[in-house]
Amino acid sequence: MSTLYEQLADSLAQRIRDGGLQAGERLPSVRQACAQAQVSPATVFQAYDLLESRGLIEARPRSGFYVRKQARGKAPPAQAEPARADSTEVAISELVFEVLHSTRDRDVVPLGSAFPSPTLFPLERLARDGARAMRQLAPQALTTELTSGNARLREALRARSVRQGLQVGPDEPIITNGAMEALNLCLQAVTRPGDVVAIEAPTFYAALQALERLHLRAVEVPTHPQLGVDPDGLAEVIARHGVAACWLMPGFQNPLGALMPNARKQAVMRVLTQAGVPVVEDDVYGELHHGSTRPLPLKALDRESLVLHCSSFSKCLAPGYRVGWALPGRHSHAVHKLKMMSSLATSVPSQLALAEYLEEGGYDRHLRQLRLTLANSLAQLRQLVLRHFPAGTRVSQPEGGYFLWVQCPEQVDTLALHHQALAHGISIAPGALFSADQRFRSAMRLNGGHPHDARIAQAVRWLGDRARSAMAG
Amino acid sequence: MSTLYEQLADSLAQRIRDGGLQAGERLPSVRQACAQAQVSPATVFQAYDLLESRGLIEARPRSGFYVRKQARGKAPPAQAEPARADSTEVAISELVFEVLHSTRDRDVVPLGSAFPSPTLFPLERLARDGARAMRQLAPQALTTELTSGNARLREALRARSVRQGLQVGPDEPIITNGAMEALNLCLQAVTRPGDVVAIEAPTFYAALQALERLHLRAVEVPTHPQLGVDPDGLAEVIARHGVAACWLMPGFQNPLGALMPNARKQAVMRVLTQAGVPVVEDDVYGELHHGSTRPLPLKALDRESLVLHCSSFSKCLAPGYRVGWALPGRHSHAVHKLKMMSSLATSVPSQLALAEYLEEGGYDRHLRQLRLTLANSLAQLRQLVLRHFPAGTRVSQPEGGYFLWVQCPEQVDTLALHHQALAHGISIAPGALFSADQRFRSAMRLNGGHPHDARIAQAVRWLGDRARSAMAG
Repeated sequence: MSTLYEQLADSLAQRIRDGGLQAGERLPSVRQACAQAQVSPATVFQAYDLLESRGLIEARPRSGFYVRKQARGKAPPAQAEPARADSTEVAISELVFEVLHSTRDRDVVPLGSAFPSPTLFPLERLARDGARAMRQLAPQALTTELTSGNARLREALRARSVRQGLQVGPDEPIITNGAMEALNLCLQAVTRPGDVVAIEAPTFYAALQALERLHLRAVEVPTHPQLGVDPDGLAEVIARHGVAACWLMPGFQNPLGALMPNARKQAVMRVLTQAGVPVVEDDVYGELHHGSTRPLPLKALDRESLVLHCSSFSKCLAPGYRVGWALPGRHSHAVHKLKMMSSLATSVPSQLALAEYLEEGGYDRHLRQLRLTLANSLAQLRQLVLRHFPAGTRVSQPEGGYFLWVQCPEQVDTLALHHQALAHGISIAPGALFSADQRFRSAMRLNGGHPHDARIAQAVRWLGDRARSAMAG
Repeated sequence: MSTLYEQLADSLAQRIRDGGLQAGERLPSVRQACAQAQVSPATVFQAYDLLESRGLIEARPRSGFYVRKQARGKAPPAQAEPARADSTEVAISELVFEVLHSTRDRDVVPLGSAFPSPTLFPLERLARDGARAMRQLAPQALTTELTSGNARLREALRARSVRQGLQVGPDEPIITNGAMEALNLCLQAVTRPGDVVAIEAPTFYAALQALERLHLRAVEVPTHPQLGVDPDGLAEVIARHGVAACWLMPGFQNPLGALMPNARKQAVMRVLTQAGVPVVEDDVYGELHHGSTRPLPLKALDRESLVLHCSSFSKCLAPGYRVGWALPGRHSHAVHKLKMMSSLATSVPSQLALAEYLEEGGYDRHLRQLRLTLANSLAQLRQLVLRHFPAGTRVSQPEGGYFLWVQCPEQVDTLALHHQALAHGISIAPGALFSADQRFRSAMRLNGGHPHDARIAQAVRWLGDRARSAMAG
C-alpha cells in the first residue's frame, strides 16, 4: 500500500536507527540516490522531505541533507524498569481526575493532553455528512439498531478490519462510546472482582482506572520503551500470579510510544495461548504510524480467539464523536450483553456521520496527511526537549502516535513539576499517572500532537529550566 | 402551568377514579358544566375531548358524554404481590438480551418494545439543529468539554431542573450516554460488590441487569400497581437486610405505570433519611404525564442529598441520540469520576443538537402534543386488551407513560406466550423480565406508544385468544 517514496524513506530511517547512517553524516546526493534506488529525482526529494518532517534529517543550504544530531547522552533508555513482585490494588482515579480536569482549560499549553489538536480533523465535512445522513434516516432505525450499532458503520469497519488482516465474526464489530467503553466492556467480560490482570509498566492510566472500577488487582510487566512488553516477563507474571487477563497496547503504546516488532507479538501470543489467558488489545494509535506500514494488530496473529481488540475514531478522525468499537472474538456475546446493560447503545448521529464519511471515501487521504503532520510536530517537540532539558534526560523516539516519554534525572519529581507548571499555564502528564506504584515519578508524557508554535517552545524551555533547578537543589 | 381545560379534565378524571362518577353515568351537559365550573363552552369541549382521548369517557351521538365502562372484573389489582424474604443474586441478562433482541425486527408488532414510535419525535428539526450547532462549534470544545458535558446543554438542563423544584449543585448535571449509563454510574457510586440493593417488584429489567453487572444482591419491595413502592415494606426490608442503596421509579413506574402520590413519596424519603440509605431515582417517564401536572421527582423532597436523580431525552424527544443526565447531589464527584473511567464523555453531536433545540424553544409544545398522543394510543390499547383478554385478566390504568401491565389468570405462562407470539410476528415483554424470581410469570408489559392500527388490533386479539387457550389447558 505504501508509495515508492515512503518505502525509500523507511529504508533510510532504518539505516539511521541502526547506525548505518551516523548523526552528522551526509545523505547521498539526489543523483546518487536515484542511481542507487532506481527511482526518479522527484521520489528522492519526497522521501527526503518526509525524513526531514519526521525530524531524522536536516537540509543545510547549498550543501545537502544530513542526519540530524540527537543530543549526546540522551538516547532512550535501553532497559525497562524492573517490575514489582506483588499484585496491587489500584487507586489512581483521583489523581487522573485531578490532572485531566486541570488540562482542560483552553488557555493552558496542552502538553499534558491526551488528544492531538482538534484543528487537524475534517470537522466541517463530518458535520455536513452527519446532517445529510440523519435527514435520510428511517425513524425506525433509531430504535431497532440499538446495541450492536449502525449497520452501515459496522459494514465499513468490518471491511477495514479485514484489510488489516483481522478475522471478523458475524456479530462483530460492536460499536461503543469510544475505545474507553470498548476496553472497559472487554475487560469486564473476561474478569470477576478480585482477579489479577497483567498490565504494562508504564501503562495507559485508563487501564489502571478500569481495574480500579472493576475491583481488579494489577500486576505490572516490564515494558521496553522501544519494543513493548517483554514476553518472558509476561510468562513469569502469568505463572506466578494466576492472571485472569492482560491489557496490552502493542502499537505505539501510551505513554512510551513503543511499537512491538512482529516477532515479539508472536512470542507474546505464544505465551498467552499456552496459558489460555485472554488479552484486551488497545489499538487506538495503530493508524498513526509515521513509517509507511500500519503495524499488525495482535489480533491478526490470534489463532485461538484470545484477543479482544478495541479501537476508535477519537484520535484519528472524530474527537468528541465518541465512537469506538470492539472485536471481542468468542467473547462477543458477553461484550454485547454488557454493552446493553451499561449504556444500551451508541449515539446514532455520531455513528451516521462516520458511516457517511467512510462510504464517501477520503479517510486514507486524511490519515496520510495527519500522519505527516503528527510526525513533524512530534519531531519538533523532541528537538525542543533535547535542547532544553538537563543532561541525563532520556527521551523516547516513537515511530508513531504523538506522545513523547521524557525520563528526567531522578531528582526531578514530575508530580511537583505538574503543579508548578499548571500555575504557570502549562500542563504535563506526570509519570505517576501511568503506574500503580511510584516508579515513574521522574518521568512525564508530553503531547506532540499540536502544531509547533512559540507558546509550546516557551513552555518546553520553562519545563527544562525547572527540571534543572530541581536537580540543583 | 396547566390550562383551564386541562384542570377541568383533571378534576373530572379524579371523580371518575374516585367513583364519584360511575361507569355508564352521563357527564354534565356542556351548558351545566359551564355554569358549574365558571368556564366557557370551548373549555368544556376541550376538556371532554381530552378525557375521551384518554379513554375515560365516550361520546354517544345525540345524547352526550358518558363515563366509559371498564369491563367487569378487570380492575387493576388492589394488592401488590408479597415480596420474598431473601435477597437474591441476579441473573436476568440472558433472558433480557434474548427478548430485546427479538423485538428489534422492524416487521414485528412492537408490543414488547421499550420505546414509543419514533415517528412521534421532531427528528428533522433535531437533525437541522445539530448540523447548525456542529458547524458553529469551536474545535477546541471537542476535547475540553469532555466528561461533564456540553456547557450549553448543561445550562438548559439546569434551568429545567430548577423549574421542577430540584436543587442543582455547581457540578451538576453530569451528561451521560442515556439514562441507562446515568443509572449504572449512580448505582455504582453508592455500592460495592456483594452489597444488597432494594428494588421494586416488579422492576425495570435494567435495574436487575445493573445489579447483575455490578455483582450486587437484590431484595424486592412490594410495589402497588397504582401507588408505587410501599414505604412500610421498604422500611422493613432496610431493617432486615442492611440495604446499601435503593433503585426506585416514583413517576410512571416501568412496567406498572404506578404514580406514587406525594404523601407516599414523603413517607419514602422519611424512611430513607432515617436509615441514611441513598436512592437512585429513575425519572425518564416524568415528562409523559397524561394529566396536567408533572409529577414531583423524589429529589424535590430530598433534604439530605440522598437522591441520585437520573433521566434522559430518549423517551421524550430524541431516541437514538443517547443523551441522559444525572443529578447525583453529594455523590457528584464519585459519579463524575466513574463517568470518566467508563466512557470518558458523551457524543458532542448529540449533545449539541439537543442544546440548540432546547435554546430555540418549543420543547414544551412538543411534550404537550406527545402526551396527548400517548394518552390516546395507550387508552386504545387498554380498550383492546379489555375486549379480547379472558375474564380474570387485570389491567393497569396508568396516568402517564405508555406501558400497560397486564396480569393474566395464573394458568397463562407469558414466557411461553412470548415465544409463540414471536413466531407469529408479535413481540411482548413477558413478566419474567421484571423480577429476579418467577412471581410475575403470568403478567406482561405491552407498549401503547405506537399509533393505533389494524396490525396492533389483530395482535392484541391474537394474544387474547392464546391466553384463553392456555386457560382451557
